[in-house]
Amino acid sequence: MVKTLISVDPKRLPWEQETPLHNRWHPDIPPVASVEEGEIFRVECVDWTGGQIKNDDSSDDVKNVDLSQVHYLSGPIAIPTAEPGDLLKVELLNLGCLDGDEWGFTGTFAKENGGGFLTEHYPRASKAVWDIEGIYCSSRHIPGVRFAGLIHPGLIGTAPSAELLKMWNVRESALCEEEGTPNEKTLCRCLYTRPLACLPDPKGAMLGQLGHFKAKQGNDETWDKVAAEAARTVPGRENGGNCDIKNLSRGCSVYFPVFVPGANLSMGDMHFSQGDGEVSFCGAIEMSGFLDIKCSVIKGGMEMLPVVGPSPLSVNPIFEIGPLEPRYSEWLVFEGVSVDERGMQHYLDATIAYKRAVLNCIKYLAKFGYTEEQVYLMLSCIPCEGRISGIVDVPNACATLAIPLAIFDRDVRPPKTMAMLEQLANGIKVLNKDVCLSTEGGAEAKDSRLD
Amino acid sequence: MVKTLISVDPKRLPWEQETPLHNRWHPDIPPVASVEEGEIFRVECVDWTGGQIKNDDSSDDVKNVDLSQVHYLSGPIAIPTAEPGDLLKVELLNLGCLDGDEWGFTGTFAKENGGGFLTEHYPRASKAVWDIEGIYCSSRHIPGVRFAGLIHPGLIGTAPSAELLKMWNVRESALCEEEGTPNEKTLCRCLYTRPLACLPDPKGAMLGQLGHFKAKQGNDETWDKVAAEAARTVPGRENGGNCDIKNLSRGCSVYFPVFVPGANLSMGDMHFSQGDGEVSFCGAIEMSGFLDIKCSVIKGGMEMLPVVGPSPLSVNPIFEIGPLEPRYSEWLVFEGVSVDERGMQHYLDATIAYKRAVLNCIKYLAKFGYTEEQVYLMLSCIPCEGRISGIVDVPNACATLAIPLAIFDRDVRPPKTMAMLEQLANGIKVLNKDVCLSTEGGAEAKDSRLD
Amino acid sequence: MVKTLISVDPKRLPWEQETPLHNRWHPDIPPVASVEEGEIFRVECVDWTGGQIKNDDSSDDVKNVDLSQVHYLSGPIAIPTAEPGDLLKVELLNLGCLDGDEWGFTGTFAKENGGGFLTEHYPRASKAVWDIEGIYCSSRHIPGVRFAGLIHPGLIGTAPSAELLKMWNVRESALCEEEGTPNEKTLCRCLYTRPLACLPDPKGAMLGQLGHFKAKQGNDETWDKVAAEAARTVPGRENGGNCDIKNLSRGCSVYFPVFVPGANLSMGDMHFSQGDGEVSFCGAIEMSGFLDIKCSVIKGGMEMLPVVGPSPLSVNPIFEIGPLEPRYSEWLVFEGVSVDERGMQHYLDATIAYKRAVLNCIKYLAKFGYTEEQVYLMLSCIPCEGRISGIVDVPNACATLAIPLAIFDRDVRPPKTMAMLEQLANGIKVLNKDVCLSTEGGAEAKDSRLD
Amino acid sequence: MVKTLISVDPKRLPWEQETPLHNRWHPDIPPVASVEEGEIFRVECVDWTGGQIKNDDSSDDVKNVDLSQVHYLSGPIAIPTAEPGDLLKVELLNLGCLDGDEWGFTGTFAKENGGGFLTEHYPRASKAVWDIEGIYCSSRHIPGVRFAGLIHPGLIGTAPSAELLKMWNVRESALCEEEGTPNEKTLCRCLYTRPLACLPDPKGAMLGQLGHFKAKQGNDETWDKVAAEAARTVPGRENGGNCDIKNLSRGCSVYFPVFVPGANLSMGDMHFSQGDGEVSFCGAIEMSGFLDIKCSVIKGGMEMLPVVGPSPLSVNPIFEIGPLEPRYSEWLVFEGVSVDERGMQHYLDATIAYKRAVLNCIKYLAKFGYTEEQVYLMLSCIPCEGRISGIVDVPNACATLAIPLAIFDRDVRPPKTMAMLEQLANGIKVLNKDVCLSTEGGAEAKDSRLD
Repeated sequence: MVKTLISVDPKRLPWEQETPLHNRWHPDIPPVASVEEGEIFRVECVDWTGGQIKNDDSSDDVKNVDLSQVHYLSGPIAIPTAEPGDLLKVELLNLGCLDGDEWGFTGTFAKENGGGFLTEHYPRASKAVWDIEGIYCSSRHIPGVRFAGLIHPGLIGTAPSAELLKMWNVRESALCEEEGTPNEKTLCRCLYTRPLACLPDPKGAMLGQLGHFKAKQGNDETWDKVAAEAARTVPGRENGGNCDIKNLSRGCSVYFPVFVPGANLSMGDMHFSQGDGEVSFCGAIEMSGFLDIKCSVIKGGMEMLPVVGPSPLSVNPIFEIGPLEPRYSEWLVFEGVSVDERGMQHYLDATIAYKRAVLNCIKYLAKFGYTEEQVYLMLSCIPCEGRISGIVDVPNACATLAIPLAIFDRDVRPPKTMAMLEQLANGIKVLNKDVCLSTEGGAEAKDSRLD
Repeated sequence: MVKTLISVDPKRLPWEQETPLHNRWHPDIPPVASVEEGEIFRVECVDWTGGQIKNDDSSDDVKNVDLSQVHYLSGPIAIPTAEPGDLLKVELLNLGCLDGDEWGFTGTFAKENGGGFLTEHYPRASKAVWDIEGIYCSSRHIPGVRFAGLIHPGLIGTAPSAELLKMWNVRESALCEEEGTPNEKTLCRCLYTRPLACLPDPKGAMLGQLGHFKAKQGNDETWDKVAAEAARTVPGRENGGNCDIKNLSRGCSVYFPVFVPGANLSMGDMHFSQGDGEVSFCGAIEMSGFLDIKCSVIKGGMEMLPVVGPSPLSVNPIFEIGPLEPRYSEWLVFEGVSVDERGMQHYLDATIAYKRAVLNCIKYLAKFGYTEEQVYLMLSCIPCEGRISGIVDVPNACATLAIPLAIFDRDVRPPKTMAMLEQLANGIKVLNKDVCLSTEGGAEAKDSRLD
Repeated sequence: MVKTLISVDPKRLPWEQETPLHNRWHPDIPPVASVEEGEIFRVECVDWTGGQIKNDDSSDDVKNVDLSQVHYLSGPIAIPTAEPGDLLKVELLNLGCLDGDEWGFTGTFAKENGGGFLTEHYPRASKAVWDIEGIYCSSRHIPGVRFAGLIHPGLIGTAPSAELLKMWNVRESALCEEEGTPNEKTLCRCLYTRPLACLPDPKGAMLGQLGHFKAKQGNDETWDKVAAEAARTVPGRENGGNCDIKNLSRGCSVYFPVFVPGANLSMGDMHFSQGDGEVSFCGAIEMSGFLDIKCSVIKGGMEMLPVVGPSPLSVNPIFEIGPLEPRYSEWLVFEGVSVDERGMQHYLDATIAYKRAVLNCIKYLAKFGYTEEQVYLMLSCIPCEGRISGIVDVPNACATLAIPLAIFDRDVRPPKTMAMLEQLANGIKVLNKDVCLSTEGGAEAKDSRLD
Repeated sequence: MVKTLISVDPKRLPWEQETPLHNRWHPDIPPVASVEEGEIFRVECVDWTGGQIKNDDSSDDVKNVDLSQVHYLSGPIAIPTAEPGDLLKVELLNLGCLDGDEWGFTGTFAKENGGGFLTEHYPRASKAVWDIEGIYCSSRHIPGVRFAGLIHPGLIGTAPSAELLKMWNVRESALCEEEGTPNEKTLCRCLYTRPLACLPDPKGAMLGQLGHFKAKQGNDETWDKVAAEAARTVPGRENGGNCDIKNLSRGCSVYFPVFVPGANLSMGDMHFSQGDGEVSFCGAIEMSGFLDIKCSVIKGGMEMLPVVGPSPLSVNPIFEIGPLEPRYSEWLVFEGVSVDERGMQHYLDATIAYKRAVLNCIKYLAKFGYTEEQVYLMLSCIPCEGRISGIVDVPNACATLAIPLAIFDRDVRPPKTMAMLEQLANGIKVLNKDVCLSTEGGAEAKDSRLD
């Protein structure tokens, strides 16, 4: 029997939830609940933006989203037997939507507000809304695709210790200091289009029982200190966090390091489905949802985790994949190598290689009648597989992006003649005539392909 | 009925083969054979080094390998109906070992001679030999693993046009010019440990019917010109080439752009199996082998390929996966984020994230009694999956490495207690007592873990 | 958004449910609800026995079950646009347990009360209770196995027309008339140990809005007539019905023939998991549960269904398998041929061949320390695959039973020596010491293997 | 390195092969070769008929086939360490076609000459020839399907002891004695259309080194005795034999009981692919081929095999499935229940239920433009799955037949309207216009559907 440990109401604002949420990592954020090993419990989560995005046909909400507030997490949850140095085994026994809230959204942020993997190409905000029908989803904004979800938490992790938190802040600050450095000779220069990292910022901070930016509760001095130190939730780190791994789905077991007494597990950012890379950044099918969980502790088990780095805290979680992922047998695969869009050669850069593979896929599917923005959103959320196929053949890393053919309602493999391609494209263009994928600028958006 | 178009004798030197091989890309290397569309033909290939590596227990051959000679390819094969601008569909109907040569090798190059993905960690040459038993392989140098092959050509592609070749040489030279630049502030500095690219070099060049470095044939002036211009085969590029994609296996269809009349298809670098990334560089199970192939031409079909870049030649092949890949249902997965081994933060660098995931896996399996060198080689050739899971969560890219549990003869999931882990480790250590994974320095090698 | 069309309370008796249930097939049972094509709706169902079996450690309830009452179905549901001759496409969008009722049971009936596939071997009632934890289940009565559910309705179908109902009653009566015939020379004689068929019987009948055996409602004359004619729900027939096909799971689409205006769809007998054959009869993991469904109508589409037989009504549903079945890669397979347990040869009898395969598996796993009753129950509900491998090689049909290895917590493949088998068996026997699989006779049951 | 233990020349007659073949089971047939445990060896086999069927467009050879000669087997092979009571583990490391003989055939026998599963419906001989192209096959006689092979030996087994042989002969004779018995009341009467069993018969016997029916060698008295006692190879039995299990494919391990010193393993009847049931009897894609094999012995291991029956010899082999089966994700499934084509009800008869499922599939695909004979042959050899889904719901057994959708070049799921079905059917009918599936009577055959 599942007991509901934390419940949320997706119709209420984040700071109006019964159990306070948090959107920062800090060891001093107190647990809101406690569970025994072996107990099965349910945790409900609001969507990562706390309800800022609506089920409608305008992308203005995505354009104007306040990213200082994300990600709204449920927790921390204490497991009293867990101590620093232990390993926490977390079984995701089941995941799903919240009753009455069976929809999700995929968006791209505007270049000025966070952007995404392909911001230089698709700089405007856009949004597709997905209807969830049992295990399936489909979107009125992207015709011709329907697929089974691979529900997972984009974000789940244990609380950092003070020492680990400091490690994060030091290294991320060091990176930010490089920003704007005139690095014309560096190999990575093309990637400087987005903020390098999000450093601690009290603006928008929500700290659970310590209070939040709208109305600080309790000891304001504590709030100020914690808010000033607490790490943003944007990246995945040693504690898990926002790894956005689509395979953390039904039935998987994750092994987390324990850094603070009680482990203090938090989670949120529920995705109905996601493609490897989550390329559009707001890119999975974002939704509210629940997780049914069981925890156990391996005493001293953090030693099972490999340490790679200067500190004994330099670890990462490991996990076992569950038995219920949708499986596909036919795939079409796109290759990319580490030559960027301007033709410039990079050295074994898997990020650029993957970018090329993704762009290749976008432009290929656009030949079938989709707009490029539609495919960009699609690749963010269909269960496509992004692989590092070759990482040693200097100077080119080779990345591949594989898309499952069965999710399309027509055959998108290369046809035998150009004429057949044209005919297929006309079919989708007809469907698209009445589709308004919402991007800034409205109607104009339909023709917004970049060349 | 399959006709053998090109046969090789793996017991003879590369320049003694009946049909001349080549190890460079150049439009002027003439085809050695011609096939009709729809015809089924067999192409045999020597291993990529042309027989430099032996089936023995010493890694001296790997240490002293002459990399100026690689990769020895069979071809070019002309398909007379193919013209520039067409798309060449190549079906890999079957692949296999050569009769009487059923073995392969996996190696790591010494740091001074090319190195690999983890050269800073494992700087010495090493070698594992694999026995191929039907669909399975196992190694006397790595006990406790056995798995079904996923045979594929590491390298297959069409010939470049003069224009495309020039594009390659220009951009790769530009990269090499950056080498040695004092880039202490760059984000990519940790990757400068290997040669940045391999520019054209007549040393070791073999140009098919134009002759080879041992004894140039025909017009020496032509040989000198072509050898000076011809691209090395090391990286994958617009024409396919050395992409090292493990999924180009039995039954897949690859769509190649055609740049020269006849397409001029070449192939080689046969792998019995490979993990995503081929991390140790000489890392698949390298072997001689055959491919049974059928080609067809889509007239004008290069337009089906997406163009991403400044030139209409900025394309990449796409492919459909075949139905006969070994499928596994249980996986253990390692995460890595883009913080390097020194603790330094990088910006959305998937290469570093994958490096971390690979190191995490190596150090984890080493806890079960393997040496780290054994796992490094193992990950190069077992069918592990390397994924770009998250590529947008600044500043951390998140990569994952998934290993199939069924290839091990014992359970390598995290046990419930540290004592159980110790017991398992003792089991493999016993097996390892009589194993001599060949690395430079012999016996010492067994204890060569880096900390 | 899912609307709940029919809800049940598993804590109330079948005749106390808000929406009346039914347990017979008859065209005159009126629909209790109506839905539009394309609408998504939820149907809740009680377990097939209507709550007769309890979550405890005694099998007395299984022994004394009243089978005249089964199966309690939710429905009929009318789809107003459906007419006789149409095809009704039913998408099973999702399925699951009812909140707060997350458990199930597997049983064998006593020989005197229905028995099962192996009644001659295991004549006593037994019961195993399964705890459902998210996607997984495990049983305190059968240690060492845990697996993901393959939830499905054992029974789902459209209402028969009067003509079809008559066809059923005629042919099943004809079969029953053969019962007891001294057929010593027949090939099928060994199968006469159970009732041949269950003919219409007012005892225990529940007819929806027409009333039920406890307290007939409305027009008693109508009730009497319908109860006397209405078909029992035990077998699968032309309308679907109790086919017990484990693959009617999440995401599948079933195409049902429409025999009456509105189609009148009913369903029940929810299973958390089942093995092919459902060998112990009460053999799946029986539970209450819900289905989320969407229907559409193919006008005149019954013509798409093949007709095999003397009547245009001689059809069967067809279906597409969903994408979310648990997939396994390693299987151990047992063969059986059509020679019965007494050594008597039968002619291409797949039933006997499958019986042999099942018995072979039971006796094999018993060598690992399980009791035969435990394996019998296990095979009824794990997702094992029962295949007709060869059906033409006179005189032996060959059936195979494949069990997925990953559901066991130890390796049950044949070990390399008899000593290793003994060691494994001791391991399970230790676990079994504290297990009391409930069978009649209690403690004695542990040693009840038949030889 | 594989050593070729037994080689054949498919262009020579069975009695002209270098190593003598055999087509009967008898303990006194001496081994023709011997192998050590762990040794890898290759065995080549002629097709089961010994070359009676030709690669042409006439089915006269199938009509007139001499079935007294089948199946031609390679072996027996002795493993000297194997003794009665041991278990012989046979690993099928690889399987394939013979070079230069890459084709196969599927046929239906005429009713007068053996018939098949559906002889009453399709009484005439027919034949389809398949071209094998690497892992794929396609047929000029059945357009629109292409699929990857699942190569396996239809027949493989150990030699029976004298005691086991006697057991076979006694029970099969008992069955034959029932033939013709006026059993109008029996449940199985509809199955009496084919010979009940094939008893020992010197006609056509080939006994390896003991000689053959064309020219007996050695001691004629021995030949006569052995030929009179030796079991026909038609059915699968306790020793394995002609089980026609499609999953005995690449990489599987089979555990055989050992009945005679040396085990004396024989094999043949190579299939490129087969559907569950091999419904047309000559129904797989029959071919010559090779097996690469490794054997090991588990001493006393026959005790691991379950005994079900009156004798300690009442056992069956068990096996582990290999990792390289073609995997499909989308399936269309046909149901059948145990009501025969005349509408007569049978009691839990899985054979009749499967027959109905097969007929349902045939008549369904015929609606797409195929002839019924084409589908009958197709179902015999595509990798379709035949399952016993429900075997307890009196009186109806429920069998299902699942066909993989990806093998068709068009979508054969039920279309949304009858008009779409008609359009699809016209497409295949056009392809079929030039196809002459060879059946007796030639042109007439195209219209030979039974109604």
